[in-house]
Amino acid sequence: MARIGLGMVGGGADAFIGGVHRIASRIDGHFDLVAGALSSTPEKAKKSGEALGLDPDRSYGSFEEMAEAEAAREDGIEAVSIVTPNHVHFAAAKPFLERGIHVICDKPLTATFDDAEAMATAVRDSKALFVLTHNYTGYPMVRQAQAMVAEGGLGQLRVVQVEYPQDWMTDAVENSGVKQAEWRTDPERSGAGGSIGDIGTHAFNLAAFVTGETPTRLAADLQSFGAGRALDDNAHVMLRYDSGARGMLWCSQVAPGYENGLRLRLFGDKGGLEWAQEDPNVLWYTRHGEPTQRITRNGAGATDASTAVSRIPPGHPEGYLEAFATLYSEAAEAIRAVQSGEDREAVMGKLPGLAAGLEGMAFIRACVTSARDDAAWVTL
Amino acid sequence: MARIGLGMVGGGADAFIGGVHRIASRIDGHFDLVAGALSSTPEKAKKSGEALGLDPDRSYGSFEEMAEAEAAREDGIEAVSIVTPNHVHFAAAKPFLERGIHVICDKPLTATFDDAEAMATAVRDSKALFVLTHNYTGYPMVRQAQAMVAEGGLGQLRVVQVEYPQDWMTDAVENSGVKQAEWRTDPERSGAGGSIGDIGTHAFNLAAFVTGETPTRLAADLQSFGAGRALDDNAHVMLRYDSGARGMLWCSQVAPGYENGLRLRLFGDKGGLEWAQEDPNVLWYTRHGEPTQRITRNGAGATDASTAVSRIPPGHPEGYLEAFATLYSEAAEAIRAVQSGEDREAVMGKLPGLAAGLEGMAFIRACVTSARDDAAWVTL
Amino acid sequence: MARIGLGMVGGGADAFIGGVHRIASRIDGHFDLVAGALSSTPEKAKKSGEALGLDPDRSYGSFEEMAEAEAAREDGIEAVSIVTPNHVHFAAAKPFLERGIHVICDKPLTATFDDAEAMATAVRDSKALFVLTHNYTGYPMVRQAQAMVAEGGLGQLRVVQVEYPQDWMTDAVENSGVKQAEWRTDPERSGAGGSIGDIGTHAFNLAAFVTGETPTRLAADLQSFGAGRALDDNAHVMLRYDSGARGMLWCSQVAPGYENGLRLRLFGDKGGLEWAQEDPNVLWYTRHGEPTQRITRNGAGATDASTAVSRIPPGHPEGYLEAFATLYSEAAEAIRAVQSGEDREAVMGKLPGLAAGLEGMAFIRACVTSARDDAAWVTL
Amino acid sequence: MARIGLGMVGGGADAFIGGVHRIASRIDGHFDLVAGALSSTPEKAKKSGEALGLDPDRSYGSFEEMAEAEAAREDGIEAVSIVTPNHVHFAAAKPFLERGIHVICDKPLTATFDDAEAMATAVRDSKALFVLTHNYTGYPMVRQAQAMVAEGGLGQLRVVQVEYPQDWMTDAVENSGVKQAEWRTDPERSGAGGSIGDIGTHAFNLAAFVTGETPTRLAADLQSFGAGRALDDNAHVMLRYDSGARGMLWCSQVAPGYENGLRLRLFGDKGGLEWAQEDPNVLWYTRHGEPTQRITRNGAGATDASTAVSRIPPGHPEGYLEAFATLYSEAAEAIRAVQSGEDREAVMGKLPGLAAGLEGMAFIRACVTSARDDAAWVTL
Repeated sequence: MARIGLGMVGGGADAFIGGVHRIASRIDGHFDLVAGALSSTPEKAKKSGEALGLDPDRSYGSFEEMAEAEAAREDGIEAVSIVTPNHVHFAAAKPFLERGIHVICDKPLTATFDDAEAMATAVRDSKALFVLTHNYTGYPMVRQAQAMVAEGGLGQLRVVQVEYPQDWMTDAVENSGVKQAEWRTDPERSGAGGSIGDIGTHAFNLAAFVTGETPTRLAADLQSFGAGRALDDNAHVMLRYDSGARGMLWCSQVAPGYENGLRLRLFGDKGGLEWAQEDPNVLWYTRHGEPTQRITRNGAGATDASTAVSRIPPGHPEGYLEAFATLYSEAAEAIRAVQSGEDREAVMGKLPGLAAGLEGMAFIRACVTSARDDAAWVTL
Repeated sequence: MARIGLGMVGGGADAFIGGVHRIASRIDGHFDLVAGALSSTPEKAKKSGEALGLDPDRSYGSFEEMAEAEAAREDGIEAVSIVTPNHVHFAAAKPFLERGIHVICDKPLTATFDDAEAMATAVRDSKALFVLTHNYTGYPMVRQAQAMVAEGGLGQLRVVQVEYPQDWMTDAVENSGVKQAEWRTDPERSGAGGSIGDIGTHAFNLAAFVTGETPTRLAADLQSFGAGRALDDNAHVMLRYDSGARGMLWCSQVAPGYENGLRLRLFGDKGGLEWAQEDPNVLWYTRHGEPTQRITRNGAGATDASTAVSRIPPGHPEGYLEAFATLYSEAAEAIRAVQSGEDREAVMGKLPGLAAGLEGMAFIRACVTSARDDAAWVTL
Repeated sequence: MARIGLGMVGGGADAFIGGVHRIASRIDGHFDLVAGALSSTPEKAKKSGEALGLDPDRSYGSFEEMAEAEAAREDGIEAVSIVTPNHVHFAAAKPFLERGIHVICDKPLTATFDDAEAMATAVRDSKALFVLTHNYTGYPMVRQAQAMVAEGGLGQLRVVQVEYPQDWMTDAVENSGVKQAEWRTDPERSGAGGSIGDIGTHAFNLAAFVTGETPTRLAADLQSFGAGRALDDNAHVMLRYDSGARGMLWCSQVAPGYENGLRLRLFGDKGGLEWAQEDPNVLWYTRHGEPTQRITRNGAGATDASTAVSRIPPGHPEGYLEAFATLYSEAAEAIRAVQSGEDREAVMGKLPGLAAGLEGMAFIRACVTSARDDAAWVTL
Repeated sequence: MARIGLGMVGGGADAFIGGVHRIASRIDGHFDLVAGALSSTPEKAKKSGEALGLDPDRSYGSFEEMAEAEAAREDGIEAVSIVTPNHVHFAAAKPFLERGIHVICDKPLTATFDDAEAMATAVRDSKALFVLTHNYTGYPMVRQAQAMVAEGGLGQLRVVQVEYPQDWMTDAVENSGVKQAEWRTDPERSGAGGSIGDIGTHAFNLAAFVTGETPTRLAADLQSFGAGRALDDNAHVMLRYDSGARGMLWCSQVAPGYENGLRLRLFGDKGGLEWAQEDPNVLWYTRHGEPTQRITRNGAGATDASTAVSRIPPGHPEGYLEAFATLYSEAAEAIRAVQSGEDREAVMGKLPGLAAGLEGMAFIRACVTSARDDAAWVTL
């Protein structure tokens, strides 16, 4: 089957996440990157396009230009990846959504709550698919964890412990030219949340994805430890679920020794499980009263939920890029399905979309609101 | 040097912690257990004394009897270990404190706050030493962690993450004859705190011991998941320190897969460290910007703080009983020092005593108070 | 830059390694798979080509046909991947080598020693590059290990411990339809070595790659535990190096609990290091007398040798497919360099080629010879 | 029950293993150390006795003197611990064996094969028990591993991988005043084996204890890497069992990064297991085709074999000293049984004794013989 023509907004030189999206789009061979507006500076955009081998005619100076031109081409892009800083997500997605071009957007949804509402409207008004790359949900053992919880492997859920520590912002690197830190610490470009928007939303989403439950109340204590930092770089959050479950969420960008320590632990009245992103091919599962099991991707104990999104035999580690690629492959499948006339909602399967994006925004808003009120309980 | 004559209150058949104290008192050879009131039931007390090989004349039916008789003997006990359920701690310690017999008491200090105050008065009025067995502070790598923090290895402390999950009360085992669970879930015998009193105090104490800082405010969300359970079996607590540091504390007795998962992680502006009780011979240390180091007991990187309380070469694991024994050995040293006329406060060194006990009680009280007020911030 | 046109021999339905090569060729975007002779059965070959979306005109019934037709096209393939069972490697590579089409061949070099010699001649007579996919050398931390050894991080090398246990052939799965096991246990298709050819060569190559030394003598005890199995499924090998270093190599396909447990440990008079394929983003390094360091891919302590072949930030695990892709990317670079007139030998860089293949064959031969002589020492 | 009066030969100042025996004898409270000949230098012996608080009358200048005097006392010692360097084992044990005083002797049995035979005769001629402290067999999870193998948990045993790396002799520390290294590298005091005698025998014994099988042939390649070292400090050994099983044994004292890395891995046609001394409370077990289980001491999955020799709840780590103490406690039980008239052979239970000692000596002899013949196969 022919590959899907893909465009990209953002992702020029120096960008981390743009490169990740490009590799992810290639791994399973469902996309061809054929157009781009790779930087907000037209000149840099062109240069980046050249470096990536884009046809110069399809390397655009702005996303509006790209949307218009590509929509007009017979061989125009079918989908676009939005990999800009958060504050550009909505503006960049809009012209493509309006033209029915499918959007694969990095998280969080937007920087501001106004933008989030506008994005919601634009998505609802469009015929295009909207995929939000909460990429950690693409890990095979996360899928298996979700299935095990759904099948009652934990019994009644009681306790959620989710954390996402990093250490790369321990020093105020935003003041020494680290571009990734510059926009993430700038409320104008990042939004009201610092670490909670950048990584807390991942932790929140992961817990919701696996448990199938979203907390309804939270109390958040946000801190900014980096000198002169306007946004939080560490957050302590307590969670309450309508089911009676309770949780804690910790995210930090100032935790020396942790590189990308997303970790989820769940406990119910029948069992517990644990998954850590830095050792992603393993799921630890304890049926209460039995020895803990080490369940491995594609190994003994792996079920359809994980093997279906796994590429290679057990013991041959798959990583971050493969998990990301799974979202792209599922997006490709969804795009093909919509193109053959299937219902837009029905094809999403496990793909995170607008709903996950809005939940993430609600999480950020609730954390900020709670923190301003001395960590009072806030309803999401 | 002659061994110190030791008595014991509690610790009869079925008791876990009594046996631990006995082994701990033997490991370094500083004590001889020569007297006991091993159960609240005189008959059981005698039987337990026999099983332990106590001289029948010194196996007493009650602690009052023992205190009186032993104080009257020329070769009477010099110290007594109190290993009863919490609600008996004060009553049992009192007659010995009054007679100048040194007290080694299990934690928490007491079950009630009234008892805690009474204990404080009794200790202050006595000439005897009062040691509270916050045994985790006896681990060599905990000592080293304390020293490293004190010497600036973390820089300015920012984040404290401490947790103590267990799983043995996942089911309502207190209803099926597990004696250890029976008294721990009974407010009359355990006090106002369930998991927070039993293990949360350990976590709180460990963090305070290593950081040298005690939080001044906390917000606690307490849960009782076990069917019909009166006291908390899971607790989520947020901590604030006057220094600006923030923390989270989680303790649980309903976390399947965790046996005795006490774990401390600290992060400052210069580095981070991690220690886990189930792998106690290792301390993970990261100087920010350098590879994480695996520092081992008595191995390369170990300093005086840990080697001084270590018995055997690196790679030969010391465990829980050795850490406990270190408190006994330090107690022996303190007793000998006091007996030679040194000042009672000066000899305590790193031994936890009344102050740690009162801090633990304040922690329990603050958690309970906060939880009743929907997890509002409470000053300790 | 335009992508390199790639063909593939083997790799049809049911094949594991063909899919791996395809993904690896796509990850960094240097190749386009445009032609294939995907099965030895022409009909299956066509069907597989269709499934992969190959132009039907370039989906061939045999590799000879493909070589001839592609060499005749102006837009013919520039490189071919050989991913057949071992006994076909030489026959499949030959027609491409003769036509100057670059060959990327799976390991081991061939099934028989005659074929190996013929392959050597064909490679020497060709102008094309010959790359052998000893893929584990593509892992960033393997590259760093190599650099650290070369820079004296271990001092004088003393002891090599390398192992490669798997468990998937614990039962005689070759008798129950597992195709991967069928040809691997068949001397006609696999050659004289079973586990030593399939995975022992990887272990041997990894040790040689990292240490820069090849043992000159070995003593091998080979076993066939699987019922009715003609070839070894477990091997114990002692190694001697001219430098005075000594080593042990263990490989097994009957080790329950091990999925793909390739692991290398090296010890010198100044330090030691350890790398394990199932946790590939970490390198453990001990400078003798200092705490062991956990060096991570792209993290603190990572050097050019590893960061140069790393794609994403620390803590975002790269895996098997990325390591494999590194060989493809380096092959692409080498191909472009040769096409611009650079010397064929000079462009290989760290890529394994004919020499590594011949060393692997010599290893297999020596093991088999030694084993037949009751594990006598044999010179490689 | 009254404690057993214990004497000690060796174990004065600077001695590591003497202190270990003393703690081990105290942990479970079955022994009282009441006499000693703690050094070969009478003056040092007296001084060490004083430091340990021995009655000066029972602190002897020589073991002969002690044996004679203690045998003459009504309250004389019932057992003696021999903790000298290897070359003194026989001479020290003899006078006690002759007098019916039970002997607890450190391993290996003796330094020379002549001494080993003489020891065998002396033991056979005596009425006393002879216990050899192959202490690693006292670990609870080693006991459980033994039971699991015996009960068929692995099926037919195929592969034994046992290793014991250390790093403390990486440098020639015997030349810089490290007493532990001095005698271990001296053939006069240590015997014909260096690392194989000191730690290889432990590895060999552990494998035999757990599998219930002893190899009948071996091929050993011994190395001395330390400058000027007369005895091996690294050994590579291949093993063959009559049952068809095969094995490898590696021991080393020059492996930087390893402190006391004794590790056993066993594989059969139904499953595999792994145990590592530095993480001794865990046993990893894989029933082929099922997820690997993490079985913990006293936890879910622990059986009588391990819980019977365990003191405290799961998650409260027991260590090296407790494992050692288990041998002492079992020795105490055996001594009491013999004293009540039971048969000397029948009471030994799982205790290692003369047979294990002779097997260890045969292992050393076979390794040395094989190594001298270029690692030829030797029958044990």
